[in-house]
Amino acid sequence: MLFHVQMDVRLPHDLPDETASALKQKERERAERLQREGKWRHLWRVAGRYANVSIFDVSGPQELHEILSGLPLFPFMDIAVTPLCRHPSSVHADDR
Amino acid sequence: MLFHVQMDVRLPHDLPDETASALKQKERERAERLQREGKWRHLWRVAGRYANVSIFDVSGPQELHEILSGLPLFPFMDIAVTPLCRHPSSVHADDR
Amino acid sequence: MLFHVQMDVRLPHDLPDETASALKQKERERAERLQREGKWRHLWRVAGRYANVSIFDVSGPQELHEILSGLPLFPFMDIAVTPLCRHPSSVHADDR
Amino acid sequence: MLFHVQMDVRLPHDLPDETASALKQKERERAERLQREGKWRHLWRVAGRYANVSIFDVSGPQELHEILSGLPLFPFMDIAVTPLCRHPSSVHADDR
Amino acid sequence: MLFHVQMDVRLPHDLPDETASALKQKERERAERLQREGKWRHLWRVAGRYANVSIFDVSGPQELHEILSGLPLFPFMDIAVTPLCRHPSSVHADDR
Amino acid sequence: MLFHVQMDVRLPHDLPDETASALKQKERERAERLQREGKWRHLWRVAGRYANVSIFDVSGPQELHEILSGLPLFPFMDIAVTPLCRHPSSVHADDR
Amino acid sequence: MLFHVQMDVRLPHDLPDETASALKQKERERAERLQREGKWRHLWRVAGRYANVSIFDVSGPQELHEILSGLPLFPFMDIAVTPLCRHPSSVHADDR
Amino acid sequence: MLFHVQMDVRLPHDLPDETASALKQKERERAERLQREGKWRHLWRVAGRYANVSIFDVSGPQELHEILSGLPLFPFMDIAVTPLCRHPSSVHADDR
Amino acid sequence: MLFHVQMDVRLPHDLPDETASALKQKERERAERLQREGKWRHLWRVAGRYANVSIFDVSGPQELHEILSGLPLFPFMDIAVTPLCRHPSSVHADDR
Amino acid sequence: MLFHVQMDVRLPHDLPDETASALKQKERERAERLQREGKWRHLWRVAGRYANVSIFDVSGPQELHEILSGLPLFPFMDIAVTPLCRHPSSVHADDR
Repeated sequence: MLFHVQMDVRLPHDLPDETASALKQKERERAERLQREGKWRHLWRVAGRYANVSIFDVSGPQELHEILSGLPLFPFMDIAVTPLCRHPSSVHADDR
Repeated sequence: MLFHVQMDVRLPHDLPDETASALKQKERERAERLQREGKWRHLWRVAGRYANVSIFDVSGPQELHEILSGLPLFPFMDIAVTPLCRHPSSVHADDR
Repeated sequence: MLFHVQMDVRLPHDLPDETASALKQKERERAERLQREGKWRHLWRVAGRYANVSIFDVSGPQELHEILSGLPLFPFMDIAVTPLCRHPSSVHADDR
Repeated sequence: MLFHVQMDVRLPHDLPDETASALKQKERERAERLQREGKWRHLWRVAGRYANVSIFDVSGPQELHEILSGLPLFPFMDIAVTPLCRHPSSVHADDR
Repeated sequence: MLFHVQMDVRLPHDLPDETASALKQKERERAERLQREGKWRHLWRVAGRYANVSIFDVSGPQELHEILSGLPLFPFMDIAVTPLCRHPSSVHADDR
Repeated sequence: MLFHVQMDVRLPHDLPDETASALKQKERERAERLQREGKWRHLWRVAGRYANVSIFDVSGPQELHEILSGLPLFPFMDIAVTPLCRHPSSVHADDR
Repeated sequence: MLFHVQMDVRLPHDLPDETASALKQKERERAERLQREGKWRHLWRVAGRYANVSIFDVSGPQELHEILSGLPLFPFMDIAVTPLCRHPSSVHADDR
Repeated sequence: MLFHVQMDVRLPHDLPDETASALKQKERERAERLQREGKWRHLWRVAGRYANVSIFDVSGPQELHEILSGLPLFPFMDIAVTPLCRHPSSVHADDR
Repeated sequence: MLFHVQMDVRLPHDLPDETASALKQKERERAERLQREGKWRHLWRVAGRYANVSIFDVSGPQELHEILSGLPLFPFMDIAVTPLCRHPSSVHADDR
Repeated sequence: MLFHVQMDVRLPHDLPDETASALKQKERERAERLQREGKWRHLWRVAGRYANVSIFDVSGPQELHEILSGLPLFPFMDIAVTPLCRHPSSVHADDR
C-alpha cells in the first residue's frame, strides 16, 4: 500500500564535514537499494530546498516506520506521512 | 517538468445535489483525459479526506495554471503547488 | 493495521433540526456496526468539543477511506489521519 | 479517567551516545512498569517519526503530571495532553 | 480537579436578534447556577473579545464535557480545554 | 486589575545542573513572595508540561512587566499575556 | 495605561449596503468622540487592508473592553489586544 | 518606492455570475490603467491559484492604500503587503 | 511616512554577559538618538516580553531598512514591519 | 519561466566573522553573475529583515534547484518557491 512522505533535512551547521559526507553517502546507498526493491516507488527533490517528496509501497505502517527510522539521516529529518489510496478517477495502472 | 499538486475540495453544503453531481462528473472526465494525454502523471486519493495528491508533467507554470484553473471544481478547491526536480539518488527512469 | 483518526464535526447552523437528527442517528448506527465488526477499535469523545479520537484497525488506507468517506457526517467533518505501528516498549497484546 | 497524550522526542545531536542510550533504556523500563500498573493503557509509535500516541488511565491531571514529568526523556519531549471521555456511540466496555 | 477552558463565541450575523438574546439569557442563567454549585470556579471576560477564560472544578473530563456541551451557546463556541494541577510553588489553598 | 499569563519554560540542555537548580530555587522564592503580597493571585501547573497558567492582580501593565521581567527564569520563558476584566455573568466576588 | 489594539473588519458580503453604511457612519462618530476624550490616543490605517492599529489610553482592561465591545462594528471585527508599558529607552514624554 | 503585494481572491459561490463578471471586467480595466501609469510595476499570476503577486511603485503607504482599497475586488481579497528596498547586490537599474 | 515595527529580542543564553551589556548600551544610545531626530516616533515595551512596538517616521522603506539593520541588536531580533497610513477617522494631527 | 523565491538568511551567532564575511562576499559575486546572465531577473531586500524577494527566469525547476542549492548561503537560508505565470491583465512585456 502507498504512503506519501515528505522529508526535510536539517543538518546542524557544526556537524563535521566528513560526518555529513559519510551520512549522505550511506543515505544514498540505502535509498537506491530500497528503490530497487520496489519499496521506495518514487523519489523527487523539492526545488530550492534540501527536501524530498516520496511515495513508498510497503506492507503497512510498521514496515514504513522500520524503513524511515533506519535511514542514516533520520535523526536530522522532519518527516510527514500521509496514507494514500487509489483515486476513483485514476486511469494509471500503477497508481494502486 | 514535474509539479506536485495537492487539491482539497470544499463543496458548500447548500450546493444543489444535481449541481454537485454534474460538477464531479465533468471533473472526472477532464481528469481522465488529462491523464491519457500524459499531463496528469499520477493521481492519488488522500485517505480519509476529500482531497488528492497529484503529479503533473507539463511544459511549465503557464500550462499548469491553465489546466488547474480549467478544472470544473477549481472554484471549490484549495490548491498547493510545489515544483519538483530529479533527485540525485533516484534510480527510477520516470522520476524525471 | 492501525490508524489514529481525529474527527471534528462542524454542522452549519442553518441545517434543519430534523436533517441533523437523522444524520446523527445514522452516524451512530454506522459507528456501532463498525465497532462490532472490529474495524473501529476505539472511540473516545474529546472533552468539551464536538469531536472524537478513534483508532481504526483495517486492511489498509483503501479500506480506511471507504469507511470514513461513507460516514453520514463525512461532509461536515475535518478529519486527520495518522498511521500507527507497534511501539517497541508496548506490553499490551492488543496495541498491535 | 482517560487522557490522550502525544509525545514528540527531540534529542540534541550533541548528546553523547551513552547518555542517550541510558535515557532510552530507563524510559523503556518506566514505560513498561506504568503499563503493567494499568496507568499507561495504550502506547503506539507514530509511523515515520520519533513520537508516540498514548492513552493514560489515571486518577486526574495531578497524577498524569507526576507520571509525565517523571519520565527520563521528559526534558527532551514536546507533549500535548487532551482529556477524553466516553463517547455515547462507543460499544467497547474498556473505552470508559 | 481543575480544567482551564477558553471559550470564543462566534454568533452568525444572520441569527435573528430574539434567538440570540434568548440564547444569551439562558447561557447566563446556566453559568450562574454552575458557579453557585462550585463547578465553575472562575469566570473572566477576555478584554476586547467575545470570549472568556474559565476554571472548572469537576469530577473529571466526563462531567466537564457534560457541562460544556450542555451550554446553550455550545454550537457557536470554539473551546480549548487544558487540564491543570497544583503547582509546587503555589501558596494558595484554593489553587488545588 | 487582572492579567492572565501563560509561561512556558525552556531550559537549554547544556545549562549546568547547579545553575538550573539555583535558578529554580530563586524562582520559587520569588513566586511565593509575590503570591503572599497578593500580586500573583493564582498559579497552576499545566498537566504534562513545564509550564504554568497564572492570574496576576497588579496596578497595570507597567507593574506586570516589572514583575515578569524580574523573574529569575525570565530569559528562558515564552510568555503570553492576556488582559482580563469582570465577566457580567460572574457571581464570584473575587473574579474582579 | 496603554493598550495596543489591532482591529480587522470582515463585513459579510450579503450585508445590505445601507446597513453597512449606517454602521460605518456610527463607527466613525464613536471613534472621533473617543479620540477627543483622549481614550483613543492613536489610530492608523494598515495600508492595503480593512484594518487599523490603535493605541488606547484607559483606566484598565475593564474600560478597554467596554469601549471595544461598544463599537458598532464590534460583531464584525477580529481584535487583538496587547498591553504596553513605558520602554526604558523612550525619550518621548507621551509614550507613558 | 516599492511594495510587494500578494492578493488572494475569494469570491462567494452564491455571487451572481453577472455581478462577478462585471467586477472582474472593472478590475481588469483598473489594473491595466494603473500599470500604464507606472504605479503597478509588475503583475504575475500564482500558478494554480486565483491569486497574484505584484510590485507597486508608489509615493508611499498612503497612495498604496488608496489604490488597493479602490480595486473593485478589494472586498473579496486577502492582501499581504511587504515593503521592499534596493538590495545591495542588485545590478538591475529598475530594481530601485 | 509611518511604519509599524515589532521587534522581539532573542539573546543566545551562551552570549557572554559583557557582550550582552555592551550591545544593550549601544542599542539604547542609538534608539535615543533616532528618537531625538524624529525618525523613531514612538517606542513602547510589550508587557511581559523582551519586545517592543514602535512607530517609525522615515522617508521610505530604504531608510527604514538602513535604520533597523544598523541597530546593534539586529542580528538577535525577529522584526515585523507593517506600513501605515492616515485613518480617515483620525482626529489627531500627528497620526499623519 | 518565472519563479518567485523568498530567502530568509539565519546565520548562527557563533559563526566566525571571517567565515561569515567570506560567505557573503561569495554570495554577492554569485548573485551578480546570475543577474547578468538573466537568470536572476529581480532582487529586492525585504525592509527590516535579512531576507530578499527574487524573481528567477530559468528553464525549469531543475535549473532553479541547481542555482539555489549552489548559493554559498544555501545551508543558512529558509527558501520558499512559488511558480508564476503570465497574468491575463498584465500589460508589461517582460512579465512573461
